[in-house]
Amino acid sequence: MQSVTSVHTNWTGAHLEDLDTPVPVIDLAVMDANIARQQAACNAHGLRLRPHIKTHKVPAIAALQRVAGAVGITAQKTTEAAVFVDVGFDDVIVAVPPVGAHKIARLLDLARRATVRAVVDSATAAQGIAAAAATNGQTVGLLIEVDSGFGRAGLQTVDEVLTLAAAITDLRGVSFDGILLYPSRPFAVEQIARVREEFDRAGLPMGLLSGGGSGMEEYSAQMGADEHRAGTYVFNDASYVLKRQIATLEQCALSVLVTVVSTALPGIVTVDGGTKTFTNDYPPEQGEGIGIVLDWPGLRLMRMSEEHGVIEVAQGTPRPSVGDRLRIVPNHACGCVNMHPALYGMRNGAVEVVWPVAARGSLH
Amino acid sequence: MQSVTSVHTNWTGAHLEDLDTPVPVIDLAVMDANIARQQAACNAHGLRLRPHIKTHKVPAIAALQRVAGAVGITAQKTTEAAVFVDVGFDDVIVAVPPVGAHKIARLLDLARRATVRAVVDSATAAQGIAAAAATNGQTVGLLIEVDSGFGRAGLQTVDEVLTLAAAITDLRGVSFDGILLYPSRPFAVEQIARVREEFDRAGLPMGLLSGGGSGMEEYSAQMGADEHRAGTYVFNDASYVLKRQIATLEQCALSVLVTVVSTALPGIVTVDGGTKTFTNDYPPEQGEGIGIVLDWPGLRLMRMSEEHGVIEVAQGTPRPSVGDRLRIVPNHACGCVNMHPALYGMRNGAVEVVWPVAARGSLH
Repeated sequence: MQSVTSVHTNWTGAHLEDLDTPVPVIDLAVMDANIARQQAACNAHGLRLRPHIKTHKVPAIAALQRVAGAVGITAQKTTEAAVFVDVGFDDVIVAVPPVGAHKIARLLDLARRATVRAVVDSATAAQGIAAAAATNGQTVGLLIEVDSGFGRAGLQTVDEVLTLAAAITDLRGVSFDGILLYPSRPFAVEQIARVREEFDRAGLPMGLLSGGGSGMEEYSAQMGADEHRAGTYVFNDASYVLKRQIATLEQCALSVLVTVVSTALPGIVTVDGGTKTFTNDYPPEQGEGIGIVLDWPGLRLMRMSEEHGVIEVAQGTPRPSVGDRLRIVPNHACGCVNMHPALYGMRNGAVEVVWPVAARGSLH
Repeated sequence: MQSVTSVHTNWTGAHLEDLDTPVPVIDLAVMDANIARQQAACNAHGLRLRPHIKTHKVPAIAALQRVAGAVGITAQKTTEAAVFVDVGFDDVIVAVPPVGAHKIARLLDLARRATVRAVVDSATAAQGIAAAAATNGQTVGLLIEVDSGFGRAGLQTVDEVLTLAAAITDLRGVSFDGILLYPSRPFAVEQIARVREEFDRAGLPMGLLSGGGSGMEEYSAQMGADEHRAGTYVFNDASYVLKRQIATLEQCALSVLVTVVSTALPGIVTVDGGTKTFTNDYPPEQGEGIGIVLDWPGLRLMRMSEEHGVIEVAQGTPRPSVGDRLRIVPNHACGCVNMHPALYGMRNGAVEVVWPVAARGSLH
């Protein structure tokens, strides 16, 4: 069995036509510009930028974000965080509550080696971390998650926030370090204003305020956040171009190179990438296609099996042949990257670097 | 960075409550019964069974299928096939046309070491394999794919099949070995009858006939197939129970253990598994939920982010607490397995084996 390393070495200098497919390729010049643009946007708003590494899961890309001015990283999971702390990242927020003995043990190990804070939205989660940390003689910083209306986690009322902050403050082994929400949005601006008022009234420090969401830094600034978390901006994707319209196609750094393997069906060509290459994230709603096929107007990826992508060819437009290669910008960069063992970074038409997706497939 | 091996060793004898989450667990007794049942169904229909390894990607599971009577394996990709040939599987069909120099080189390497046939549906794909094989002095067996109406690949008419079979027969480096289709269905029975008639009329042998699809062996038998390919039956999944109704919940061998990390939202609990754990394959259409939550009536996984699963709790039913663990049968077993580095095989409540998902993340 070939390891990722053996498969992906020795590609430096290769061109697109040299690569096996399906393979995710990064336009490094576009990625560099995306990193600079997001950093500049945060700087302009007086926000520190804390990139979310869930999008790329590659320490070398996080290092480029740090060089550009990022203050640290966001991870969803302790296992993701571990990959980055192991290579020297020293300021991490774990944005899903670490619950259970394995995650807490991993969190405490990381917190001995770096500034690693975790998010919680319950006394139970806080107590679990506190008990283990106190036994170790450690103190772990906790952020309280507030639900800004996304409806997946986070406290619902100002009273709940104050109560949990007080409970955390009273616990040995943890400290109340601030408030986190996702995404920043107008509703959150009002919400945080009320939270701040109540903290002030109670004479309690609110600590760090962390907002998030690519393209949402304006609302993080309006709510007086210290930091802004964003991930997808590093690559952008078809959902950002077509649905949210916060990026242009030229700002999409990630595409997947695929090969036409069948032209047997009329009006269709079939490529060697399907749901195990692109994911079923963000399915098309109005016939706009799955992702965006580059360079071939009239081609739309309309449906997928696990390893087949079915592309409709509009009447009157050129039809690719078996063996032709197409590049497709995925609907969801974060999901797509997670399907692949490595990313191929290209500059001036040649592979400059191959990055293993190091934090892919972590347990949690 | 921890390797898959280091993370997943030493779990033998562990119980569910000992495992980190999210983790895919296999009920080995149910899997054994699924393997025996599918083999018996094929035996009863006089069909050889050629399991599709895309579902599990684990050589040890394919070995259990072989012990039960399977004649070989099906793979989608040459990289998947390589993982299995490397450990001794000697009869493989690659079911997506291998197009391009890398895939053809890999196919020829495998075909030197085992009986490895590939599917094509174009003269271009056949010629590519033939040219490389003839140069090597090899002859690779090819199967022609016929579209039984699924609409993703495969020839459309009897004439096309005869023409391509003749073209393959005329090429050095390849042999025409038969016909493959997916899925077997009533339409395919008529279709194959016409193909057979024309082959007979032309005095040409039709070769191996390979049908496919879990639960479709009846139609493979009706069309006079030699072999039947099926994958998902080894685990079954919620789509088989709820949408296709060809398995019962008790016949589902795969579930994912997750942990409740938030109960902050009214009527909801949030678990540490989302689209990067379950995939967005086969989204629910009528509010039936994503997958099936075991043991907790009234709980439905309604939406996901990458690492969050949002579960609605029906009024009047018990609500899990932060730290509780739930098991969820995924919508799509093949997609779910592909998200995870390893499968945990359980028997009598304890881990018996941990299998790396060895063919996951292959290039193609």
